[in-house]
Amino acid sequence: MEDEQYIVETNIDDMNPELYDYIEEKLFEAGALDVYKTSIIMKKGRPAIKLSILTKVHNTSSIEEVVFKETTSIGIRKYKVNKTMLSRDFSKFRTKYGDVTVKTSYYGEKIIKSKPEYEDCKRIAKENNISINEVYNEINDKIRGC
Amino acid sequence: MEDEQYIVETNIDDMNPELYDYIEEKLFEAGALDVYKTSIIMKKGRPAIKLSILTKVHNTSSIEEVVFKETTSIGIRKYKVNKTMLSRDFSKFRTKYGDVTVKTSYYGEKIIKSKPEYEDCKRIAKENNISINEVYNEINDKIRGC
Amino acid sequence: MEDEQYIVETNIDDMNPELYDYIEEKLFEAGALDVYKTSIIMKKGRPAIKLSILTKVHNTSSIEEVVFKETTSIGIRKYKVNKTMLSRDFSKFRTKYGDVTVKTSYYGEKIIKSKPEYEDCKRIAKENNISINEVYNEINDKIRGC
Amino acid sequence: MEDEQYIVETNIDDMNPELYDYIEEKLFEAGALDVYKTSIIMKKGRPAIKLSILTKVHNTSSIEEVVFKETTSIGIRKYKVNKTMLSRDFSKFRTKYGDVTVKTSYYGEKIIKSKPEYEDCKRIAKENNISINEVYNEINDKIRGC
Amino acid sequence: MEDEQYIVETNIDDMNPELYDYIEEKLFEAGALDVYKTSIIMKKGRPAIKLSILTKVHNTSSIEEVVFKETTSIGIRKYKVNKTMLSRDFSKFRTKYGDVTVKTSYYGEKIIKSKPEYEDCKRIAKENNISINEVYNEINDKIRGC
Amino acid sequence: MEDEQYIVETNIDDMNPELYDYIEEKLFEAGALDVYKTSIIMKKGRPAIKLSILTKVHNTSSIEEVVFKETTSIGIRKYKVNKTMLSRDFSKFRTKYGDVTVKTSYYGEKIIKSKPEYEDCKRIAKENNISINEVYNEINDKIRGC
Repeated sequence: MEDEQYIVETNIDDMNPELYDYIEEKLFEAGALDVYKTSIIMKKGRPAIKLSILTKVHNTSSIEEVVFKETTSIGIRKYKVNKTMLSRDFSKFRTKYGDVTVKTSYYGEKIIKSKPEYEDCKRIAKENNISINEVYNEINDKIRGC
Repeated sequence: MEDEQYIVETNIDDMNPELYDYIEEKLFEAGALDVYKTSIIMKKGRPAIKLSILTKVHNTSSIEEVVFKETTSIGIRKYKVNKTMLSRDFSKFRTKYGDVTVKTSYYGEKIIKSKPEYEDCKRIAKENNISINEVYNEINDKIRGC
Repeated sequence: MEDEQYIVETNIDDMNPELYDYIEEKLFEAGALDVYKTSIIMKKGRPAIKLSILTKVHNTSSIEEVVFKETTSIGIRKYKVNKTMLSRDFSKFRTKYGDVTVKTSYYGEKIIKSKPEYEDCKRIAKENNISINEVYNEINDKIRGC
Repeated sequence: MEDEQYIVETNIDDMNPELYDYIEEKLFEAGALDVYKTSIIMKKGRPAIKLSILTKVHNTSSIEEVVFKETTSIGIRKYKVNKTMLSRDFSKFRTKYGDVTVKTSYYGEKIIKSKPEYEDCKRIAKENNISINEVYNEINDKIRGC
Repeated sequence: MEDEQYIVETNIDDMNPELYDYIEEKLFEAGALDVYKTSIIMKKGRPAIKLSILTKVHNTSSIEEVVFKETTSIGIRKYKVNKTMLSRDFSKFRTKYGDVTVKTSYYGEKIIKSKPEYEDCKRIAKENNISINEVYNEINDKIRGC
Repeated sequence: MEDEQYIVETNIDDMNPELYDYIEEKLFEAGALDVYKTSIIMKKGRPAIKLSILTKVHNTSSIEEVVFKETTSIGIRKYKVNKTMLSRDFSKFRTKYGDVTVKTSYYGEKIIKSKPEYEDCKRIAKENNISINEVYNEINDKIRGC
């Protein structure tokens, strides 16, 4: 799949970093496809954060509104990127610890990677009081038909 | 308050970074006082993470057990640090959006900083559909007696 | 306000980092709108700096000239970004410590944030031998009409 | 020299970081002009790597194929950049430790920087059991005609 | 296994970063147990590198000599750390691509993790022209007796 | 020279990063030998700063007072480090652009590095409107007797 999206970015050097977690929730609610942060050094040697948001083109103004309302930013920049996504599907695998969702990705027609959902593995490790690696091993065995 | 604690550290260059969130939960359950991560570059130019855990001295072996069981680490180092903590208390402030817990810190006998709890501010911003800065402003007014 | 600008970037892995401070001064003199640095890892695992400069389109060649003359870079890349800026104005607030400039930003017609100038706060903290937080508190009281 | 190239990027938060070194070799074999990594923080606070590849436009699909086959990435974004390169030539300088290649860069017609090849300096330091700074000093003397 | 070691550290803000790779080779030759680098910001906002070396106590002066001779550092600090290592052994596993060394670690008497050597996996991926993930999957199957 | 000093550290995740520049000035006024900052990730995925201060042992409480009064920190940790410093002296070199101070360091009795003061080079580059590399080249020629 190919798509045209925007990267919306702003450099923030004057905000309490506790707020990022809240701001990210608001950005995802406003339709952000992804959000990430990079540590940068701004002028006067200030340690700062570059906040980057990936968004559909038509949704850009909603994203900008959250940035302006919830952060200290007074300037936002954006640029278009072409996105290539692998096609994916999701299936359930039965393990001795319960069902786990596995995401399978395709390159053309061919399966190229399979991966159990992290949140499922985390839940199972907790419920069964085993290490998370044991969970991954058990599930990878099932995926690989062992 | 003064206390002697351990910093327990390990450098990890061969683990799926999704797992850190789970590992941190396990470390706090095992009694960690704080956990933080630093991006480092290890040999062969590998981007890696230094995982640092602050712990009471008597609790160190529980922390080490989590690190060995849940991460790919095969070596842990630790060193003692002297910790100085401000004394603190917590009080409730009534605002038009509801009650907020405020943490007050003392240097000697003197109030040196006051700070509303972030989780309270976040909850109020969501419930009232206002920006989180409005919440902080409202609460700071109350703290400062405006 | 909307504007089209360039991000000019170069990755530097073979320069004495002391020089960045001088180079940034030269870039701002040459008309840079902003300059920031990001720690990156280049090939062979080298710790390096990505130097990023935001510039008006018509001013790009002056910026490139500084980069080529003052750094070890032999290749520069650039791409266009669309910039959205909040409209702003500046006003003076009288405090017991003297006048402070406050920057007010507008989202549409509405005031969205107000912020005292950091350099004013820093100067006042030094002159009055008080903590910089006391200065911010005093000024925020004035801004908020307390 | 001016050229139009692509920056191909993907954010990776679920891969063993040991693999980057292998993946970079594959990317250079597939024609990458440059590869670099930036530490970022993705959603849920995950420490992650943004992998950036500079490539000729016509070669982009080979680069994307390596990324999809060798990493855990399921989505790649790309954007065009205009590249400006200084013209360069290489010459040999004779030193008491043997010949060293020096790269000279030109801004217009004028020599703007000269630099001995790092790999030559490294080899000479090892063979002669001297510090690498002594090697650089010796070679810089030759370049500057001392 | 428990051991007492030194962390030897220096902050470097005035050296060509190309040299780190050479310096690390010299440090390992001088007996360093591990070497890693952290991006830091020093005074005047300088982007710098904290170079950290883990070493046996008796070998510290050899390490310091390399740092003073090969870097621009004029000051080194060190502090003792207690190291806890898992006991390990190495075994060969036969796969359809050839033999692979696997490192097994023990917590007390119990196997706690097993891991194929990265350099073996890398070599096999190259020789067989398959993705490195296929190699890891094949070997993990063997380790897990599938 | 050998000396015993303290590293005083605190992790800060809730402070406006503009303030670091002011805080560093206050720390140096209070006798800090060096101050540096490291980007870290704290719990809940917060991007934060580890502030590190190197200080003489007897001066530690002055440093702690600045940290508690000027930052949002409510807990500080410290640990002792052994410092090894090269002996150094300073001399003036006459160049066609004016006098430059050069710092020479000794390993035992032997000169091991020489380095012009950055601030002198910066001033000369500005006054003479030449690139800072030209200044360094000119001065290095003088140091090396060319």
